[in-house]
Amino acid sequence: MRMLGRHMVSGLQRHASRTLAGTGVKNQTTLASPDLKVESLVPGEPSGPRMVTDSIPGPVSQSRLKDLNQIQPSQSIQLFLDYDRSLGNYIVDVDGNQLLDVYTQISSMPLGYNHPNLLKLLDDPSIVKAFINRPALGAFPGADWPERLSNSLMAVAPPGLKTITTMACGSCSNENAYKQIFMWYRSKQRGHDNFSQEELDSCMINQEPGSPQLSLLSFHGAFHGRTMGCLTTTHSKAIHKLDVPAMDWPIARFPLYKYPLEEHTRENQEEDRKCLEEVEDLIHQYNAKGMPVAGIVIEPIQAEGGDNHGSNEFFQQLQAIAKRNGAAFLIDEVQTGGGPTGKYWCHEHFDLPEAPDIVTFSKKMLTGGYYMKDEFRPSHGYRIYNTWMGEPSKIIVLEEVIKVVKRDNLLENTKNVGEILMQGIHALEDKYPQHINSTRGKGTFIAFNGKDPATRDKIVGNLKAAGIHSGGCGEQAVRLRPALIFQPHHAEIFLDKLETVLGQL
Amino acid sequence: MRMLGRHMVSGLQRHASRTLAGTGVKNQTTLASPDLKVESLVPGEPSGPRMVTDSIPGPVSQSRLKDLNQIQPSQSIQLFLDYDRSLGNYIVDVDGNQLLDVYTQISSMPLGYNHPNLLKLLDDPSIVKAFINRPALGAFPGADWPERLSNSLMAVAPPGLKTITTMACGSCSNENAYKQIFMWYRSKQRGHDNFSQEELDSCMINQEPGSPQLSLLSFHGAFHGRTMGCLTTTHSKAIHKLDVPAMDWPIARFPLYKYPLEEHTRENQEEDRKCLEEVEDLIHQYNAKGMPVAGIVIEPIQAEGGDNHGSNEFFQQLQAIAKRNGAAFLIDEVQTGGGPTGKYWCHEHFDLPEAPDIVTFSKKMLTGGYYMKDEFRPSHGYRIYNTWMGEPSKIIVLEEVIKVVKRDNLLENTKNVGEILMQGIHALEDKYPQHINSTRGKGTFIAFNGKDPATRDKIVGNLKAAGIHSGGCGEQAVRLRPALIFQPHHAEIFLDKLETVLGQL
Repeated sequence: MRMLGRHMVSGLQRHASRTLAGTGVKNQTTLASPDLKVESLVPGEPSGPRMVTDSIPGPVSQSRLKDLNQIQPSQSIQLFLDYDRSLGNYIVDVDGNQLLDVYTQISSMPLGYNHPNLLKLLDDPSIVKAFINRPALGAFPGADWPERLSNSLMAVAPPGLKTITTMACGSCSNENAYKQIFMWYRSKQRGHDNFSQEELDSCMINQEPGSPQLSLLSFHGAFHGRTMGCLTTTHSKAIHKLDVPAMDWPIARFPLYKYPLEEHTRENQEEDRKCLEEVEDLIHQYNAKGMPVAGIVIEPIQAEGGDNHGSNEFFQQLQAIAKRNGAAFLIDEVQTGGGPTGKYWCHEHFDLPEAPDIVTFSKKMLTGGYYMKDEFRPSHGYRIYNTWMGEPSKIIVLEEVIKVVKRDNLLENTKNVGEILMQGIHALEDKYPQHINSTRGKGTFIAFNGKDPATRDKIVGNLKAAGIHSGGCGEQAVRLRPALIFQPHHAEIFLDKLETVLGQL
Repeated sequence: MRMLGRHMVSGLQRHASRTLAGTGVKNQTTLASPDLKVESLVPGEPSGPRMVTDSIPGPVSQSRLKDLNQIQPSQSIQLFLDYDRSLGNYIVDVDGNQLLDVYTQISSMPLGYNHPNLLKLLDDPSIVKAFINRPALGAFPGADWPERLSNSLMAVAPPGLKTITTMACGSCSNENAYKQIFMWYRSKQRGHDNFSQEELDSCMINQEPGSPQLSLLSFHGAFHGRTMGCLTTTHSKAIHKLDVPAMDWPIARFPLYKYPLEEHTRENQEEDRKCLEEVEDLIHQYNAKGMPVAGIVIEPIQAEGGDNHGSNEFFQQLQAIAKRNGAAFLIDEVQTGGGPTGKYWCHEHFDLPEAPDIVTFSKKMLTGGYYMKDEFRPSHGYRIYNTWMGEPSKIIVLEEVIKVVKRDNLLENTKNVGEILMQGIHALEDKYPQHINSTRGKGTFIAFNGKDPATRDKIVGNLKAAGIHSGGCGEQAVRLRPALIFQPHHAEIFLDKLETVLGQL
């Protein structure tokens, strides 16, 4: 394994001194921790960013973009990457620029790039075959499917949830979980699942009672995907929703806190109270107008909407409201699940008195799907179904990811490095309050605001030019979504570059 | 390569004599064709089915099912397969039964199982890396993405369609194509895409004008997927739709023909006329009630709904109606695309005066996605987007599939073997008119009806017990969805077993 070079060490020293120069509320124990690793978890990882083009995207990326745009709408393309040369926490683009990646394909690479354990998987011929023999999993799974599921998704299931359905992506996970909620709700209403002929006939033409007037309550700022059911519950950016028909379902306010939290306890508690009151009001209102609320869907941290956090008390009381009103409580962990908050599932931080009814996932879990309470199991076959229902090769890779997470204590690593990042960014917030504020996070799932949208864009752009690949979310947040192998020395590089960027604004 | 054994040859002879004993309308040139291959396109393929358990599913499948059901709702599971031992057109289940597969994971295995060319792909380290480094394709594609797309999806693009969007599955393909239609329609209505503040604000709360009242016209019996937008246009089976809210969109009758076609020309033309009339009526009706029809979505053959075919004239006139009414014309080739009809795209059979506006695909194409006319390109980035937008490793495998299809003339093979199947099933229909009827198909995309649902179920079940894995669709159809490597000698085995099953009913 490679030892840290001089650059790293000096970076660590700079960080320590900056932290000490901060408000004094942060402590430096993390830096002094004996757990602090200075060796990269991925052997051969570069020692830092290296930019070779004057601006980014460089000329090769720009030329590829021209080619691609001939055949595919390409307005959202940022960079073309050389995935063969990318390694660990570092991406290499087609111009040879090497960037520290704290965005990781929108938070979907648990072990970064070309992790040796995942590469080694492909030495097994039986696993190679899994990549080219894709089954219709809902009808003809492979011999090892039950065992694979047990060793992967079930090995990290949220406490209290013992039933799984796999899907191919986040949107399909939410869409099908929503359907599962509607089926559960109607089944409760009917008291049984012996469908009447009227129900069977009317649903075929999208009419009641077979296609019932039911709703899901979602939150302003939420993002649950872009297929039409999900999109109805998504309210993060207009450009995602504009021109697409949507259902009239209730939308409540998600708490928007003032930071630092410890200085605004009273206002933030009041914010919780108002939001919860609105939830309950909307449920009554929609029940009364004949479109009952079958479920509440919420992210544990609103990610695309700007990394908005809710308090433990907010989530506890929201679950109680759902229960009291006979609505299912779905937590969408597509972006938060799989470890970035320092626990496998973000909602584990909330001390909920019981498990959520459904937890959906994708991204870092490599496969989509959802966990659910047993009472949500459909009473008949083919109610929740599609051709592929996910893919075994993803589960094989996930199984290995979970092994590495355990072996390398990556949740603990994420918790520790998250503290270093939070300390460092807080210190920078204190130093540059005119540029950034509202640092917030759990584990390495961290964001801070630029003072306005233009400042945020400038920070993300200048970070990229300096060799740090981050992302924006919401109106003015910079978000960090590093891999679980992001270590203290990577955090140090990030903080170092961020300080430079802020100093030059 | 293995030569056909005696069993095969005698099978071919039996088929020839059965064909001759038929109605006389079939000819036997296909059998005499010099193209008739008697060597398997996949070396080492078994010479025929081999059943080793008394009933199917056997005891090992049943025991696995018990395990799986502990953690996953499993009512739809039919068999557990040993994908390592499956080869070419043959599946092997966990009990050691070896079946000829004419269903191929619901029509999604273009080259069957463990095709040597696909296995060989994994020898390339750069391709191995593509399996574990999944990019966010809409933002950070790999260096080779434009070229890979050109060599795969664009190499077999439907004539007239030059723009592609990739997606992960069939449902996501349709959902996003639907959104693309709504955006296109509103853009035309507005005359520009400078969105007003009112549009931007109202869409965030699912209200007009930002979330407009628009509809898509679909057909009774259609299947376009199970996410909530798709499900609104799906009308094949109640169990798929029941209890899920749906939008009030127009549904027209899809032609249901009498077979044999040549004996019912007049009635079937009348059927076309009535269905087309209803389409136009519904468009006017929905336009008048303030929910304009932005598009018509249709399968070229209604697959899940029972393999219902429409005439070329029906599709030509339907396209004309769409055009006349300013509605987009979307052909959903999720099940028909990729070669099974003897052309890459089923709609190529229809002699349409111009390309459809959008063609969606998945299954045999290995990746989901859609082709579209350039005028459907979104005017802004991030309007059609998600984290993964498909997957490069699928495109790599598809590129190889397309090479093999070309090298081995698999479209021609499919056309030829489809004729053999059609002739053979027609002959059996003549022999057993009390059991089966209405044989129909294009290429090997073939179905016939059992005289009632129970007979159909019996035929599918008895075929399975005899070592043929087929599927049902609609109320009473048996459907064939073999791979593109399904050859005359496989057809012969199928016909042989089908004859036995029908003779014993």
